[in-house]
Amino acid sequence: MKAEIIAVGTEILLGDIVNTNAQFLAKELANVGIEVFKQTVIGDNSERLSQAFEEALASCDMVITTGGLGPTEDDLTKETACQVLGMSSVLHKPSLIALEAFFKKVGKEIPESNYKQVYFPKEATVLSNPNGTAPGAILQQGKKTIIVLPGPPKEMMPMFRNLVKPYLMKMSNGVIVSEMVRVLGVGEGYAAEKLKDLIENGQNPTVAPYAKEEDVVFRITAKAKSFEDALKMIYPLKMEVKNRMGIDAYAEGDDITIQAVVADLLKRKNLTIAVAESCTGGQIASRLAEQSGISKNFLEGIVAYTDDSKIKRLGVKRESLEKYTAVSENVAEEMAKGVVEMVGADIGISTTGYAEKGDGVSDEMSGIVFIGIIYNGKTHVQKHSFTGNRNTVRRKASIAALDFVRRCILNE
Amino acid sequence: MKAEIIAVGTEILLGDIVNTNAQFLAKELANVGIEVFKQTVIGDNSERLSQAFEEALASCDMVITTGGLGPTEDDLTKETACQVLGMSSVLHKPSLIALEAFFKKVGKEIPESNYKQVYFPKEATVLSNPNGTAPGAILQQGKKTIIVLPGPPKEMMPMFRNLVKPYLMKMSNGVIVSEMVRVLGVGEGYAAEKLKDLIENGQNPTVAPYAKEEDVVFRITAKAKSFEDALKMIYPLKMEVKNRMGIDAYAEGDDITIQAVVADLLKRKNLTIAVAESCTGGQIASRLAEQSGISKNFLEGIVAYTDDSKIKRLGVKRESLEKYTAVSENVAEEMAKGVVEMVGADIGISTTGYAEKGDGVSDEMSGIVFIGIIYNGKTHVQKHSFTGNRNTVRRKASIAALDFVRRCILNE
Repeated sequence: MKAEIIAVGTEILLGDIVNTNAQFLAKELANVGIEVFKQTVIGDNSERLSQAFEEALASCDMVITTGGLGPTEDDLTKETACQVLGMSSVLHKPSLIALEAFFKKVGKEIPESNYKQVYFPKEATVLSNPNGTAPGAILQQGKKTIIVLPGPPKEMMPMFRNLVKPYLMKMSNGVIVSEMVRVLGVGEGYAAEKLKDLIENGQNPTVAPYAKEEDVVFRITAKAKSFEDALKMIYPLKMEVKNRMGIDAYAEGDDITIQAVVADLLKRKNLTIAVAESCTGGQIASRLAEQSGISKNFLEGIVAYTDDSKIKRLGVKRESLEKYTAVSENVAEEMAKGVVEMVGADIGISTTGYAEKGDGVSDEMSGIVFIGIIYNGKTHVQKHSFTGNRNTVRRKASIAALDFVRRCILNE
Repeated sequence: MKAEIIAVGTEILLGDIVNTNAQFLAKELANVGIEVFKQTVIGDNSERLSQAFEEALASCDMVITTGGLGPTEDDLTKETACQVLGMSSVLHKPSLIALEAFFKKVGKEIPESNYKQVYFPKEATVLSNPNGTAPGAILQQGKKTIIVLPGPPKEMMPMFRNLVKPYLMKMSNGVIVSEMVRVLGVGEGYAAEKLKDLIENGQNPTVAPYAKEEDVVFRITAKAKSFEDALKMIYPLKMEVKNRMGIDAYAEGDDITIQAVVADLLKRKNLTIAVAESCTGGQIASRLAEQSGISKNFLEGIVAYTDDSKIKRLGVKRESLEKYTAVSENVAEEMAKGVVEMVGADIGISTTGYAEKGDGVSDEMSGIVFIGIIYNGKTHVQKHSFTGNRNTVRRKASIAALDFVRRCILNE
């Protein structure tokens, strides 16, 4: 079963608002085994919309629209859908009663323009809207279905979950389930090389890589009769992906971050951490502080931007700064040692580097970052050379530092 | 001139990520007077993509794509565009050199799969990508143009602004120019009240308010023959908006942040600052550290998460913690004083608060944050009660603290 999602609204087309409805519907449809074939955004224009309906119905069994059900002149989605399907509308009594109740509640007269919201074809399954004045509708004709939903997420989402989803689950057979394996420390190209055969040969389940802003994700997707069957199909392939990626595979799942993984490790192993940051300037501390209940494990952070604070707060030797400069393996190591001794934490992590060129920093030096760790009395230092602008370098360095903590704990 | 935006990527089609690229491009195209006719999302599927190209080129002069330029098997946008336009690709030397430099810098071998990213048609205008391995391209054939851009916003946005926008401005006639006045410390409703007449009466130029995630923005928009004419039309209205908003208007422009404004103030007035953070957990430091050349003004940050570090590092009195608790006006004041004395900066700023409920924090207490400042020997403390989850509260507190610094400096 194939579907196209059409968002109707000039405000989306012109970029005044982001089309989050499409994301919501795409995920929900996948969960009930309906393949989203295409997403489209059309302005409030009946002619273009009816062309979009024609094109969509030519390749899909179902079209789901959001928006254009309002009371104004340029709300034309329902009217255009009916025209495309050759259906004519009549007054829908239950909707009229609901409309009257709605305006009685807010103590206002019903504006003339709102009455068009309660006219539907006889063939329609009308979807009541407890959160607004625009009911939705399921318009079915032979094998083709158009479902029109209101635009405001607060109205659309409950209407979909409560009225549309149950209807779709009856229609569709089977589900599509995806699981993610997240990778750090290697590029998309390198990671994909390691899984080339799995990516190319996969039919069902499939493996697909994509580079996110902060990591590389492999999505393993299976179509099956039931959720349980899909998980059974996914499991061995997911294990194969994880085994091949080894320690570079740092997490599974959708929204999980490296700081969440590190926070979880610290909590489970009952470890405390202190952070000494130069180039990352507090970003590592801030990422750790995102995590609920981290205050028992994350004891203190020092943003030692100046040589002076590196010396006074972290006990970095002036000679080291003079001999090796602030951006050096030695200083990174002394910073990590210093913060651990000062705070008395189990783990100390430090960063020092050049976030961008200029101010005496050459093109080649820009992006060079040293990350120091002390754990169980052992110190380790990584040297990185990151690409990108100041904040890309800072972001990459913060992620690499947190990933370094993860690797050190796991390698113990 | 009409354009269609096509986002390529199964991860968008299935709703794993929201299509923010389309919003960015829609706005940017409107600014150069190009009408966005349609937005489309297609999966990583060459056949569907080439059909989408055909349909788009039938009704539009230009198609702009994002995504599908990566090194993997299922990255097919460039190849499909060339096939639709009947162009064949050859090695593009400058791109190869850039690719080699990129991997040399990160100290890795070039994976075989990455080489396909440096092949382009002879007719193409290749768009270099300093932030990644995928160059973009402008493919023109007669009156039809396809522009392929990478998917990651960090790569796509600068490529568009620096290389595509100038090209488009030459092609289109007439411009729509917007300027922004940004406001902090007041809600959208209150701010809009102050500008009610301007918002309602505006034709060309117009004033429109937007509540952004971090502030409230008033966009002043003018349509004109030339960029200069538009600016002339905008100027007086912009001045009127700024005058009415007074000190609450903290900045003009699109991407400017409160941390950029504060950094600029510190530099111009040659002031140094030190930060003592509890609930914001390093976010204020990290925001300051975003700014180029801030290291002369931002001396040091302490993330004093525990009572112990508040006492040892910042000299907060144990009695104050016991008598008033860590989240109190007194402790905020002592933290600001402590960090200034320790570091010897001109300005000290501190935060202490409850980012979320639970762990002994009630619903009512959650979101309460004290912000302390010491400047010219005078201390000031603000008490806020923020709504939202842990990270919304932390974000709002960081912004409020930076805005507090701005107001204190300006009020001197």
